[in-house]
Amino acid sequence: MFSSDLYTRKTFLKNMSVGILTATSLPLNAGNDLEDSTEKSSPGDVPEEKLPRSPLNHSTEQEEPAFYPAPRNPAKRVGYAIVGLGHLALTDVMPAFANSKYSKPVALVSGDAHKAKVVAEQYGINPMNIYDYNTFDRIADNKEIEAVYIILPNSMHHEFTIRAAKAGKHVLCEKPMANSAKECEEMIDACKKANRKLMIAYRIQYEPNNALIRDWVQQKKYGNVKLMELFNGQNIGDPSQWRLKKSLAGGGSLPDVGIYCLNTARYLLGEEPDAVSGFIHTTPGDIRFKEVEESVMFQLHFPSGVIANCGTTYGAHMTRRYRLFADAGAWFGMDPAFSYKGIRIELSQSIGKIESKQYPAIEEKDQFALEIDHFSECVRNDKKPFTPGEEGLQDQRIIDAIYQAAKEGKVVSLKKYDGKDVFRGEVPKDDK
Amino acid sequence: MFSSDLYTRKTFLKNMSVGILTATSLPLNAGNDLEDSTEKSSPGDVPEEKLPRSPLNHSTEQEEPAFYPAPRNPAKRVGYAIVGLGHLALTDVMPAFANSKYSKPVALVSGDAHKAKVVAEQYGINPMNIYDYNTFDRIADNKEIEAVYIILPNSMHHEFTIRAAKAGKHVLCEKPMANSAKECEEMIDACKKANRKLMIAYRIQYEPNNALIRDWVQQKKYGNVKLMELFNGQNIGDPSQWRLKKSLAGGGSLPDVGIYCLNTARYLLGEEPDAVSGFIHTTPGDIRFKEVEESVMFQLHFPSGVIANCGTTYGAHMTRRYRLFADAGAWFGMDPAFSYKGIRIELSQSIGKIESKQYPAIEEKDQFALEIDHFSECVRNDKKPFTPGEEGLQDQRIIDAIYQAAKEGKVVSLKKYDGKDVFRGEVPKDDK
Amino acid sequence: MFSSDLYTRKTFLKNMSVGILTATSLPLNAGNDLEDSTEKSSPGDVPEEKLPRSPLNHSTEQEEPAFYPAPRNPAKRVGYAIVGLGHLALTDVMPAFANSKYSKPVALVSGDAHKAKVVAEQYGINPMNIYDYNTFDRIADNKEIEAVYIILPNSMHHEFTIRAAKAGKHVLCEKPMANSAKECEEMIDACKKANRKLMIAYRIQYEPNNALIRDWVQQKKYGNVKLMELFNGQNIGDPSQWRLKKSLAGGGSLPDVGIYCLNTARYLLGEEPDAVSGFIHTTPGDIRFKEVEESVMFQLHFPSGVIANCGTTYGAHMTRRYRLFADAGAWFGMDPAFSYKGIRIELSQSIGKIESKQYPAIEEKDQFALEIDHFSECVRNDKKPFTPGEEGLQDQRIIDAIYQAAKEGKVVSLKKYDGKDVFRGEVPKDDK
Amino acid sequence: MFSSDLYTRKTFLKNMSVGILTATSLPLNAGNDLEDSTEKSSPGDVPEEKLPRSPLNHSTEQEEPAFYPAPRNPAKRVGYAIVGLGHLALTDVMPAFANSKYSKPVALVSGDAHKAKVVAEQYGINPMNIYDYNTFDRIADNKEIEAVYIILPNSMHHEFTIRAAKAGKHVLCEKPMANSAKECEEMIDACKKANRKLMIAYRIQYEPNNALIRDWVQQKKYGNVKLMELFNGQNIGDPSQWRLKKSLAGGGSLPDVGIYCLNTARYLLGEEPDAVSGFIHTTPGDIRFKEVEESVMFQLHFPSGVIANCGTTYGAHMTRRYRLFADAGAWFGMDPAFSYKGIRIELSQSIGKIESKQYPAIEEKDQFALEIDHFSECVRNDKKPFTPGEEGLQDQRIIDAIYQAAKEGKVVSLKKYDGKDVFRGEVPKDDK
Repeated sequence: MFSSDLYTRKTFLKNMSVGILTATSLPLNAGNDLEDSTEKSSPGDVPEEKLPRSPLNHSTEQEEPAFYPAPRNPAKRVGYAIVGLGHLALTDVMPAFANSKYSKPVALVSGDAHKAKVVAEQYGINPMNIYDYNTFDRIADNKEIEAVYIILPNSMHHEFTIRAAKAGKHVLCEKPMANSAKECEEMIDACKKANRKLMIAYRIQYEPNNALIRDWVQQKKYGNVKLMELFNGQNIGDPSQWRLKKSLAGGGSLPDVGIYCLNTARYLLGEEPDAVSGFIHTTPGDIRFKEVEESVMFQLHFPSGVIANCGTTYGAHMTRRYRLFADAGAWFGMDPAFSYKGIRIELSQSIGKIESKQYPAIEEKDQFALEIDHFSECVRNDKKPFTPGEEGLQDQRIIDAIYQAAKEGKVVSLKKYDGKDVFRGEVPKDDK
Repeated sequence: MFSSDLYTRKTFLKNMSVGILTATSLPLNAGNDLEDSTEKSSPGDVPEEKLPRSPLNHSTEQEEPAFYPAPRNPAKRVGYAIVGLGHLALTDVMPAFANSKYSKPVALVSGDAHKAKVVAEQYGINPMNIYDYNTFDRIADNKEIEAVYIILPNSMHHEFTIRAAKAGKHVLCEKPMANSAKECEEMIDACKKANRKLMIAYRIQYEPNNALIRDWVQQKKYGNVKLMELFNGQNIGDPSQWRLKKSLAGGGSLPDVGIYCLNTARYLLGEEPDAVSGFIHTTPGDIRFKEVEESVMFQLHFPSGVIANCGTTYGAHMTRRYRLFADAGAWFGMDPAFSYKGIRIELSQSIGKIESKQYPAIEEKDQFALEIDHFSECVRNDKKPFTPGEEGLQDQRIIDAIYQAAKEGKVVSLKKYDGKDVFRGEVPKDDK
Repeated sequence: MFSSDLYTRKTFLKNMSVGILTATSLPLNAGNDLEDSTEKSSPGDVPEEKLPRSPLNHSTEQEEPAFYPAPRNPAKRVGYAIVGLGHLALTDVMPAFANSKYSKPVALVSGDAHKAKVVAEQYGINPMNIYDYNTFDRIADNKEIEAVYIILPNSMHHEFTIRAAKAGKHVLCEKPMANSAKECEEMIDACKKANRKLMIAYRIQYEPNNALIRDWVQQKKYGNVKLMELFNGQNIGDPSQWRLKKSLAGGGSLPDVGIYCLNTARYLLGEEPDAVSGFIHTTPGDIRFKEVEESVMFQLHFPSGVIANCGTTYGAHMTRRYRLFADAGAWFGMDPAFSYKGIRIELSQSIGKIESKQYPAIEEKDQFALEIDHFSECVRNDKKPFTPGEEGLQDQRIIDAIYQAAKEGKVVSLKKYDGKDVFRGEVPKDDK
Repeated sequence: MFSSDLYTRKTFLKNMSVGILTATSLPLNAGNDLEDSTEKSSPGDVPEEKLPRSPLNHSTEQEEPAFYPAPRNPAKRVGYAIVGLGHLALTDVMPAFANSKYSKPVALVSGDAHKAKVVAEQYGINPMNIYDYNTFDRIADNKEIEAVYIILPNSMHHEFTIRAAKAGKHVLCEKPMANSAKECEEMIDACKKANRKLMIAYRIQYEPNNALIRDWVQQKKYGNVKLMELFNGQNIGDPSQWRLKKSLAGGGSLPDVGIYCLNTARYLLGEEPDAVSGFIHTTPGDIRFKEVEESVMFQLHFPSGVIANCGTTYGAHMTRRYRLFADAGAWFGMDPAFSYKGIRIELSQSIGKIESKQYPAIEEKDQFALEIDHFSECVRNDKKPFTPGEEGLQDQRIIDAIYQAAKEGKVVSLKKYDGKDVFRGEVPKDDK
């Protein structure tokens, strides 16, 4: 009755399963080593071998990974120059490289020589690989650098992407891509001409919980999505920061944080909006908002009939969430969404007389590491990134239309596109 | 060290309190009756006496009511004729009267004589007090009936409000008030001419958890509310129901369920919107929506600069929620909101390094009973209801503007009003 | 493609359903009355007819009740004398009668004449039907009174149950049943001899969300339940209240609130424990606990091998919850549990790589009304209550064993019983 | 009215604060560099300099760290030999080193040469630094290795701790420390004799959310904690794994996962239990549990009067949680607790008429990295670890007592200790 097989193979009939994911049969490696039954590995000695991992828990439990984590040897990873050592670079991106599997930081570019020296010391980067904005182009001569990750004020993305491409480096560029559609087009052209990859750093499109929701939408798991709400706002501080300078940031909350709403709506649906409208409000007299807008509440209309209510602000307590309203007994989304950590799927579903609020969760991973590793694999294997320059350009066009709609108090139409994911490249694979 | 006083009086220093509500000192009635220490009551024998209730629990615990529930003797309550025995009347309103303190159903008005007879039997209503739509006006002769509660298809509100007023009865009318602003105005006029009260049945404005949020907004507990999101949608069934007939319902999801978004936004802010915009979408070929719209995604702009993203639908899984974004370290709202039961405040607040998601809850009460009792007390004490006819008229004007904005693809302006709560009457008192 | 049938019948393929409850085909009554499509009722004029209710929403949505609420005409209900007008009677039980369908309060018994007079006035009870503890036996002559609901201090349950039985009345008695097993036995005997029903007021056993969990356990929906945790505690106040007098209460937190843990564990499993252990702690010097214990942490061992960790206290912030640990990929329970309102099922389930925390909810009803109505139907239809006197006696025996175990610092064995639900009567039917 | 100062300094009056943490004034570095206002750093060029980080958000928002992450240069970190390449080492510990700031893996010890080679390649470890269990003692000659992290089956902890100490290396050893108190004592002695540090890897004691709860308990923020519930269970799989072999594991669920309950209870209270009791149950015929127990439900009694109900199992769906019941209007705890990721504080508090369920969260960090870095800093600065060998020995004594209590069906007493944290070393500092 109680056989060993029961506990180690996924033959368990999940008759209570809601079937969100199909449980698969895992190959097992039931070692019997006295010392550690998990220490046996499969034969062979291939480079980049993944070690199989037998499940620790019963087949009724959450599915465990089939392999142990398999980072690539540091010497074989794609080397990056980090361009700009501001908040995002130092708080999030530099630490994230530690969690990447195919990427490593090998050079720093900064206008502050002391800061660059300290950071290089902290992360074990060769101090010879420090550049400033004048010496930047010399990266062309540094073989260790295969790619750059541009984390500069928005207005500098254009210049440094083009200079990097000319230096023969692949470019991973932070969002928003630039301050105008024309700049975006020039960046795409420069990378194309130099035959270098260009990817915009849309974290959300590389995160597995968001990908699960995208699957639900596109496979109509809960029927057709009819409407959406998305909001991404925060309460910005220091009035002297570059995000509040029009010439550096290009705009206010919309291109910086509001962009998540429109980019994620497009990603989840795979569709492009054909019309937008919106209101802008900025609190009179608030010294933070002398140059850029505080809040934008906007609407995206999609050809399928889906309408998305979106909102963004620099003037209220941090909120990041989205919800999709589907027609087969469920709504779903994330709250919080968009955050670097702590995102949470929520779902409510009717089941007979029961309304069941649910929080299905896939284990979180370092979002920056996933995004950077996707680009590294595109570089290594010569593939088009999932979020190439064209993806950033389209967001810029929509942002321009929203500003126009709010200014003119009317609906503004956008070019229509047929098909799904018209600007995107290869779907990121889950290599766990 | 341990004194009796410690446990029975609210002298406990709530130094960990977030101070949402101030704990008050309760008069105690510490009986020492051997049989039941709570059975002692205060002296005196006044009519409608409330019996004081000593707290059962320690002063550190959730504050208990100061008095036992004190319903009014049935013979002294305001008697209502229930006009229309449809879903809402039978599922919700008739049972709610059992939880009212000042109100009772004494008559039924229905086009279905058998149904009326069965319902009268169930609720102990005198079968002589059954009317149909032709004999309705004879209620004028029935002294037991002081008020009517109109729960008919929207298009009939106008006629029956006017007939009720002419019959000398006070009118509690379901939302939406009518199908046009002109009808609303005529209803107001008819009740004014007859010197009868008119109240629109906006449940939300009589519910204590919503009132708590309104207090937070208006007292700026978490600073200024900058933006709002509100959504109220459901997936309607039977295509033959009156809600889907233009002539009976006046519109689709917007006047039926979307009205909660705009009415609640106005209630919480106390302000009136000065501009609106919106998109409408109806799924082609869906037989439910031959006459009325499926979904409306709209925006309300308020003079203070607050912008509300609102949405409603008849075509997606039930969702009812709202959230307000404030600028002093918190957002708050309800999810679910608007429901008859199970509403839940949610709040997220920054406290040092901690982000604290919170669900503060006041005990739920029967929302219909609260609403009906407010009207009964207005009738008894000759006061203007908190949500008089003018409140319903204003919603109708906004609904008209949203339809126009969506049709014309542009922002539509509304008349501006100064001051707070310009259409509302006496604030409902919490008499617990 | 879009047929009317789709929206009105439960033919919708719930392929995403977790199948917690089976959706059933509902008979529909698709009226086409211009006035109100729901106002048509089925022909016939039977007494106690239930009016069919067509669903308002789409078949994808939460299942709606098949009938409108159908309370019984007041004149035909079982009339109760409420014995004792303390906290529970006035705060909870009297208001609950308004939500009952088969029951009504017709008489009051109290040692406080003024209080009784006020309450009678409030609830429309004939002032001739007020009794005190001396005149109590005269209820024998009052035909309006068919049953009594005893809500007195624990030590008085024994006497008044026996006097009520002798007066020819059925007895609904609050928990704990009495202060000793011997008293319980005498109460059972007295009612048996008088051929009257006796039921102990275990609310939880009549509440549908708890019943759903019981179904999961007994049908092994998530496999075998292996272990349980149950806790029910509160921070008691006024040291002079009868609950803190040994002679009146019989004990402290254990018989008053801890009883929920053991009674609910027995109810959910359908089994009887065969061994118990426990620790008791009372804070030295706390004037509340001069006579009775503050906290009891105890363990129940069941013949199937299930072990339940239980806890109760009078000295900490209110917590009421339970959780069951099952072996097929899920745990489940309630938090809060045991409360009069606001109970919430929680469930966590493994589904592939996802761990899904879930809150399945059935609409809450008035728990006291459900319990009282069960007894009324037993009285009317001559059936054994689900929680008869024997159920209360068994709890008393377990309480005695826990006290002994804690005192002696060792495991105490209990009599073993075969079969399920050995002390219970007819399973309450869900007549919605 | 709107001054720059308002947005950049913590002068904001948090009058709605619950005061869980005191917001502190942050030194600001308001750069005005055109390129990136955050790129300016303070003068000076000290080694291990921390770069100050100006807050990005408004002073009303969640407090941001005062410094950028400051990992130590890899060349200066404490080098570890990882002893045992099983599940925990490969799934969790090796990846965690990437998130450490003061530690690095420099050598591997395994019985599987191929696996060790693959892992060395993945993590960039010198293949010359691979050892097996026979060659282990040669680590004495390897200067790169300053410490070992022992992640072997429990029965091997004793031998390899002693061999490591003899080889002159500091020892970080996984829990449970060993299979008997005698073994623990010998391990402590061996390290003392060799003048090497010994620390047991109790993750929970280095995690900041758990530390916050410990602060609440010890500072009596919500009054006195009276009672506790703790549970840690999972559903184990493969019957052939070493955890199910008595000789390798020393026991079943109790020493492996149940140990979290007792260790965390001791940590939060700072007290040592003086008595225990418990039941053990193992499902008959389950082939997993031929040698070790399945479930243990036990109770810990503390000198202060606190009683903890604890439970652990290898036979039910994964649950990890704890809750503490305090007497000043709140309970609090974690659910999930004990997990590597996704832990969540929960708190319920009475505030006037409101009961507020709260989820206060401090940003999660890599728990293994925190734990390892604590040990590295103890090694570097010659300090006693917070969880030294004595901490592991005490858990072993309690485990022995629980087994005895369950076997004999009675309460077993433990040695009493005065004072707080009698076995612990230096409190881990939060160096963020």
